[in-house]
Amino acid sequence: MKAKEQTLSIFALGGVNEIGKNMYVLQYENDLLIIDCGGKFPDESLLGIDLIIPDISYLEQNKDKIRGLIVTHGHEDHIGGIPYFLKKLNVPIYATRFTLGLIEIKLDEHKLLRETECIQIDAESKLKFEKISVSFFKTNHSIPDCLGIVFHTPEGNVVHTGDFKFDLTPVNNQYSDIHKMAEIGRNGVLALLSESTNAERPGSTPSERIVGEHIEEAFKKAEQKVIVSTFASNVNRVQQVVDASIKTNRKLALLGRSMVNVVSVAIERGYLNVPEGMLVDARDVNELSPEKVTILCTGSQGEPLAALSRLSTASYRDVAILPDDLIILAAGPIPGNERNVTRIIDNLFTLGAKVIYGSGSSSGMHVSGHAYQEELKLMLTLMRPKYFIPIHGEFRMLHHHKVLAESVGVESGHTFIVKNGDVVDIQNGEALQTRKVAAGDIYVDGVGVGDIGDVVLRDRKQLSEDGMLVIVITLSKAERKIVSGPDTISRGFVYNRESEDLIKTVNRLVTNTVTELQEENIHRWNVIKQAIKKSVGQYLFTKTKRKPMILPIIIEI
Amino acid sequence: MKAKEQTLSIFALGGVNEIGKNMYVLQYENDLLIIDCGGKFPDESLLGIDLIIPDISYLEQNKDKIRGLIVTHGHEDHIGGIPYFLKKLNVPIYATRFTLGLIEIKLDEHKLLRETECIQIDAESKLKFEKISVSFFKTNHSIPDCLGIVFHTPEGNVVHTGDFKFDLTPVNNQYSDIHKMAEIGRNGVLALLSESTNAERPGSTPSERIVGEHIEEAFKKAEQKVIVSTFASNVNRVQQVVDASIKTNRKLALLGRSMVNVVSVAIERGYLNVPEGMLVDARDVNELSPEKVTILCTGSQGEPLAALSRLSTASYRDVAILPDDLIILAAGPIPGNERNVTRIIDNLFTLGAKVIYGSGSSSGMHVSGHAYQEELKLMLTLMRPKYFIPIHGEFRMLHHHKVLAESVGVESGHTFIVKNGDVVDIQNGEALQTRKVAAGDIYVDGVGVGDIGDVVLRDRKQLSEDGMLVIVITLSKAERKIVSGPDTISRGFVYNRESEDLIKTVNRLVTNTVTELQEENIHRWNVIKQAIKKSVGQYLFTKTKRKPMILPIIIEI
Repeated sequence: MKAKEQTLSIFALGGVNEIGKNMYVLQYENDLLIIDCGGKFPDESLLGIDLIIPDISYLEQNKDKIRGLIVTHGHEDHIGGIPYFLKKLNVPIYATRFTLGLIEIKLDEHKLLRETECIQIDAESKLKFEKISVSFFKTNHSIPDCLGIVFHTPEGNVVHTGDFKFDLTPVNNQYSDIHKMAEIGRNGVLALLSESTNAERPGSTPSERIVGEHIEEAFKKAEQKVIVSTFASNVNRVQQVVDASIKTNRKLALLGRSMVNVVSVAIERGYLNVPEGMLVDARDVNELSPEKVTILCTGSQGEPLAALSRLSTASYRDVAILPDDLIILAAGPIPGNERNVTRIIDNLFTLGAKVIYGSGSSSGMHVSGHAYQEELKLMLTLMRPKYFIPIHGEFRMLHHHKVLAESVGVESGHTFIVKNGDVVDIQNGEALQTRKVAAGDIYVDGVGVGDIGDVVLRDRKQLSEDGMLVIVITLSKAERKIVSGPDTISRGFVYNRESEDLIKTVNRLVTNTVTELQEENIHRWNVIKQAIKKSVGQYLFTKTKRKPMILPIIIEI
Repeated sequence: MKAKEQTLSIFALGGVNEIGKNMYVLQYENDLLIIDCGGKFPDESLLGIDLIIPDISYLEQNKDKIRGLIVTHGHEDHIGGIPYFLKKLNVPIYATRFTLGLIEIKLDEHKLLRETECIQIDAESKLKFEKISVSFFKTNHSIPDCLGIVFHTPEGNVVHTGDFKFDLTPVNNQYSDIHKMAEIGRNGVLALLSESTNAERPGSTPSERIVGEHIEEAFKKAEQKVIVSTFASNVNRVQQVVDASIKTNRKLALLGRSMVNVVSVAIERGYLNVPEGMLVDARDVNELSPEKVTILCTGSQGEPLAALSRLSTASYRDVAILPDDLIILAAGPIPGNERNVTRIIDNLFTLGAKVIYGSGSSSGMHVSGHAYQEELKLMLTLMRPKYFIPIHGEFRMLHHHKVLAESVGVESGHTFIVKNGDVVDIQNGEALQTRKVAAGDIYVDGVGVGDIGDVVLRDRKQLSEDGMLVIVITLSKAERKIVSGPDTISRGFVYNRESEDLIKTVNRLVTNTVTELQEENIHRWNVIKQAIKKSVGQYLFTKTKRKPMILPIIIEI
């Protein structure tokens, strides 16, 4: 019954040529399935922006065909965009029990919980749509309950790995279902979409269990409080902190909203095993003997308002770091966060604490959740795909992943390194990438979604670097002359004794400029404003080498 | 003749609890000697600031005692502050031939060359002041012609290491004079100031020669152009690029102002050996066969305006990157620069180039110029100081260096981890740290030095995150009512259809606020402005979750 003229289309709306805002689409006839809906944290050039989410205008235009949003796991770069997405498109969400728990926290915050259809799935689930059916396989990653996805389409099977590593000695039995993967590969894979985060790194990522061993060792040596900062969603690592605390007779306090939220979900839903009576309130920590206390806190990325940062500056109300307390940073800094993290480490040392830290896995307290080269090759070997689309990575990572794929037998020319919006069309078993759909970054700033554009960002950049001058001048319409002003107000520009003289000269310049124009009988505001901007701008640049924004305001009376 | 009541004072005006703006002072009676005068690059929180330099108000107050500025080597964090320093204090500068070459480039740019007394020294020089005499010893570091310093004072000898590593197979014969160091140690060292950059790293830093071997290997395999980006001042690495180019029959072009400047100084002064006729102009590169070309360029830290960045976006006029060109990043990214660097790597891969890169020394194309733990211990062992002051590092590095010092025999209590401005006073062989002198950060922005303070930076931050609204309203003095406006101008705030409604509501709010106050007979501008700020601020925060700067301007006619 396969309609030969039909095409299977695969594309990313986010997640390629970047780390973050993952969103992939698979479409065949009337079945449009979405995989993940992530957010991305802005770099420092995007002044004032809180979050970046994918442009979903293609989905809005094709909303009748959308069958659902399938979520591979609960990390921010896979679920962070969901609330904004749902405000535009009310679509059923398919995810595992733990992933749904994390999504529901978000939906609750955005008051979207009641109107959203959340459907719980697991690795044994099968979904059936018009022409596509979907099955799943278990993977291991730095968060529980992750899935890889198989789409059974009339053109053939397409596999999306989600984020994964192969951890053969996993914690909490979160194993990779290699046998099922092998079977999927044996049955034939038309196209594989596999994550590329660590495609630059040779070898294999160490097992999470290694971290547990190092944690236990450190706990046994610790003489005072132990404070561990890690990603709240890394429940297996949290479990190992719990286990080490049990072995060393420590109670456990949680600091930071996301730590409290995620740990609650994990305990409730059975992903984390914390004995009755072990959890204590942060306010009660001071009543316990220090060697009986473990604290788990947020802020491992150096976030200035998170618990660890506040502890390091002795500004957390209920808990103080004391000499010989042990702080373990059980997370690697994400590129861009290093300076914030080292500032915290310095502050902790200043307080007399012992600190275990290190880049990547060098401290033994962190391992990556993303497959290294040998693991990526294993996935490619298991799946034996005809076509390969490396996803989830910046360009160089996708490039390296392509080289790996070819090294294990993917035919040259069968790997598609795509941009967001590039569509790979497969028809009669032949894949081509020729067309595009709309894709891009949407900025979230406060409650505004998509209302910040390049103009606003350019203004913010100028304002941030050199500040601004507002120059107010009142003109008489009747007499064609200045009746008051110019008055110049500066913000973010200069502030000292010398600046008074500077401002006086600016005012004199403005008076001259305006008077000259009036003598020439030029009264158009725009012309006057441009002339003010030009003369003041040139003067200030010569004197200060700065280019503040100049905003002339003319009042005519 | 030693006056027992006299004190030897040692302190930092920059360089401790930070990486950058190194400046140390040694004072005994009427002899005040300054070591280095560095700049520091601002992090992203210091919006619009170009450079940070040390506060030298203590030196200005004691200028009669200053005998000179001794510069250990020519890196920016040791010489970057010199032009600003000289504009306040005209002091003789003592430095080696190569270091002086780099300083003179700066002095020339700032038109200070003629009035400055530059005195060339070498490792055999001896300086004699009233009570202090000074001698030197050769060290190895990632720039030629580095010195460590010995101050012979009536209290005893004080050693300042400068920046160093122990490279036992150095390039260009830039050896560490271990025998002289041993002799200095045998003669007794009262206090050692030693750099701490890599005090966290176990082992020893590899030899620069390793980089040369990897460069040569890569050159031999390269089939097209080779582009190497490294620090211009790392002349020994530049030499190895020259040597590899000679062996593979390539001409050499230099891109980037600092590469051209520094290489010229190095050739002129005999630190770099480039055969006659090997250098070609960048404009002539296209006329050569690609396999006959090496390009050395600036921008290894991802600086957006430097040569490498412009090459990566195909926007360098004279030279284009073509498929299979080889780009070697022969420098590790300084923390904070990773994102800019990886963006460039991605762009280079997109152009089809081959790229050799990697964090730290993982690519084989970079080694650190700063001693690791075993080398720091060797320096401490050679010097056997009574007192130890770790310098040149953030707090955790100083802390680790202290631990290392105690592990090789420095007595507990004899290490001083100081802040900038903390004075270590030594009298009758006993050291104490009790007093402070003024120290701090001075911001350079454009041609302004020290005219940017916290208020300006706070304004810039607010402007950068949420932009601003200027609200202009004209009031009649006679009638006590609004005669025109309010008019609201926004910059960096929002820009879309919806914002029009927002601005309309703002104007309505302002009218209401002002009218109400006038009805209550309140006419003081400050009160009216505050009321406008409050009502508009609250409204905008509710609607947008943003806090733009609100600048009400009242014109009274």
